[in-house]
Amino acid sequence: MKKHDLNPDPGVQKRIYFDWAASAPYCGFDGQLSFGNPSSLHSEGRAAKQALEEARQRCASILDVPPATLYFTSGGTESNSIALFSNLMRPGKGRILSSPAEHASVRECMDTLEKMGKPAGSIEIESAGMVTVKTLEKTLLKYPDARFASIMAVNNETGAITDIASLGSLLAAKSVHFHCDLAQAAGKIPLNISGWEIDSASISAHKISGPRGIGLLYLRKPIDVFYTGGGQENGIRGGTENTQGAAALADCLEKCIGDVETHFHNAKKRWKRLMTELCAIKRCTIIPEERTAEDERFSPYILQAAFKDIPGEVMARALDDLGFAVSTGSACSSSSPERPVLSAMGIDENLRIEGIRISQGQSTSCEDIDLLLEGISEVLKFL
Amino acid sequence: MKKHDLNPDPGVQKRIYFDWAASAPYCGFDGQLSFGNPSSLHSEGRAAKQALEEARQRCASILDVPPATLYFTSGGTESNSIALFSNLMRPGKGRILSSPAEHASVRECMDTLEKMGKPAGSIEIESAGMVTVKTLEKTLLKYPDARFASIMAVNNETGAITDIASLGSLLAAKSVHFHCDLAQAAGKIPLNISGWEIDSASISAHKISGPRGIGLLYLRKPIDVFYTGGGQENGIRGGTENTQGAAALADCLEKCIGDVETHFHNAKKRWKRLMTELCAIKRCTIIPEERTAEDERFSPYILQAAFKDIPGEVMARALDDLGFAVSTGSACSSSSPERPVLSAMGIDENLRIEGIRISQGQSTSCEDIDLLLEGISEVLKFL
Repeated sequence: MKKHDLNPDPGVQKRIYFDWAASAPYCGFDGQLSFGNPSSLHSEGRAAKQALEEARQRCASILDVPPATLYFTSGGTESNSIALFSNLMRPGKGRILSSPAEHASVRECMDTLEKMGKPAGSIEIESAGMVTVKTLEKTLLKYPDARFASIMAVNNETGAITDIASLGSLLAAKSVHFHCDLAQAAGKIPLNISGWEIDSASISAHKISGPRGIGLLYLRKPIDVFYTGGGQENGIRGGTENTQGAAALADCLEKCIGDVETHFHNAKKRWKRLMTELCAIKRCTIIPEERTAEDERFSPYILQAAFKDIPGEVMARALDDLGFAVSTGSACSSSSPERPVLSAMGIDENLRIEGIRISQGQSTSCEDIDLLLEGISEVLKFL
Repeated sequence: MKKHDLNPDPGVQKRIYFDWAASAPYCGFDGQLSFGNPSSLHSEGRAAKQALEEARQRCASILDVPPATLYFTSGGTESNSIALFSNLMRPGKGRILSSPAEHASVRECMDTLEKMGKPAGSIEIESAGMVTVKTLEKTLLKYPDARFASIMAVNNETGAITDIASLGSLLAAKSVHFHCDLAQAAGKIPLNISGWEIDSASISAHKISGPRGIGLLYLRKPIDVFYTGGGQENGIRGGTENTQGAAALADCLEKCIGDVETHFHNAKKRWKRLMTELCAIKRCTIIPEERTAEDERFSPYILQAAFKDIPGEVMARALDDLGFAVSTGSACSSSSPERPVLSAMGIDENLRIEGIRISQGQSTSCEDIDLLLEGISEVLKFL
């Protein structure tokens, strides 16, 4: 798979991409691996199996977890589903908790689980957009029958960072399975999967410049899965293993996580610059309003902002015409005008309608930020 | 993604690949498509969406079905699961039928559906290995409450071809949903999806030289799916769409199906040669024994054969050492010594243990067949 050049043709309008949270440009993968089926016993199969296990070993090493805890899946959505639907295999009626800030792939599983008779419970979020020790404690008091909780590490619409370590301790003390969606966290913020008391976690390759159709599920201990077929991945995920995808994912994780602190530091600097300038624009409101330019409670890769009297969709379209890719909210929910995450944060309806999401990546430059700010001023002159 | 050269290094032992049913060598994909998320509304997203829809249109055109009936999934296993688990969303207790010859991904879904309280029924297969009008009629008489049947078009272990058209009429007359696993049929035998009364069908890209992690689900009418998340693919399959994979799959389908009759004819000629020679070997038994060298009831891409007093695994290993890749049975079940498909056909235990699967592809040559026959004679001298 080739590396994607954001601006391949000098004759074409320069594009500046600020929607990394939806999908990141490919970083390319040049490996030539065996095409064999890793389950086959012949030479081609064994070579494929070896390539697959090397990819797993590399992912494990950079994530600092045992290789046997990592399972390749088709992506973040599937990893979330495997973890959540394992509840169908557990006898009894233990309650499944999640917050209204979770990704659509979690929210929709929750709806299905409820339909299947599994009681659900909602974990409140703070006005800043994250589950906190306080809101989780309150929820656990309300639902003493809780046995599973799905809480994301970084919110995909606002960048709100969850204090995973503290929530992990709290859930572990109550023997509640802690599933953590790391789609917007892996390769972006420093992780400590083994140290935090996480029972399962999801990672998606295409969010960190990997190919589509590959992701990881971390399972501290194997679970009894609902969805099977073929017995691959130790019975956790059926289907012929995507060896090429696994190797490409290992590459991406190494590139992103190997230097995550430096990238994080640089991203913060760029975000401070962007936010400081945005705050100086009278018609601009950061969402949530309490977020400051160097707020450690938020990921420096994602920002939600509203521009007075300009619907988010109009703003995104106007910026697109000028060469900037931004989004309104989650790409997965782009067909719906609803903004459930912002609603749950108590964000005013006007702001919800006006909100746009700006998200950057490791290769975003300070110049890109300045150009985006110019683009925004340009739009504000006419709208 | 690069084209896979079966023998890239002239210094290395020449490998001859006879395990196409497990996975086929990549045919390569050179396209450079937008990395955007097809759900995003900006230019990159729209370009990705357009590429995805073009891929769908191309697949639809070559499969001769409406584009709106095709949904991209992560592969055959997932396509089967989506179709089968839709039964969980249907109220009532209608019975779900499948045959013991189905792929592990179907058999395991059936087990889960039964655990979830959905009554199952087994469709007998003939000694030749396929469901026939006769066995299906008998099953439908036995189970008047049947509402769903999963029957594969070509068996992955024996090559037995099902008379899909006749079974389709029978099932349609009883208003039973007909799900057909086309993994070993698409691109191999002539298809008539729209003409046959199929309600849903599965196709896997890597079986026809496409990449891993992409497949198709055909749905004559949309179904209420169990597994959701994000709303992509018209709500049928959640997760960011694999645009590159979809385009590569369209390429492969066009290459395989565009000239399927010629390839089918050539494959038959090669298989006749192979089988005629194998039948002349005293220690060799074709499975099932009733299969003749030009038997139209079997796919000319798959052959099961046993060699007296040589366990299949030993034979496969010995051939592997000589440079030939063959398998014992389904790659997905290679870790298990059980051969449930052969058992259901009533094949004697010795033959089951001794069975190997030989499967060819479009680029297999007559010379490859001759070399394999030489390899087999070589092994028989010593074992």
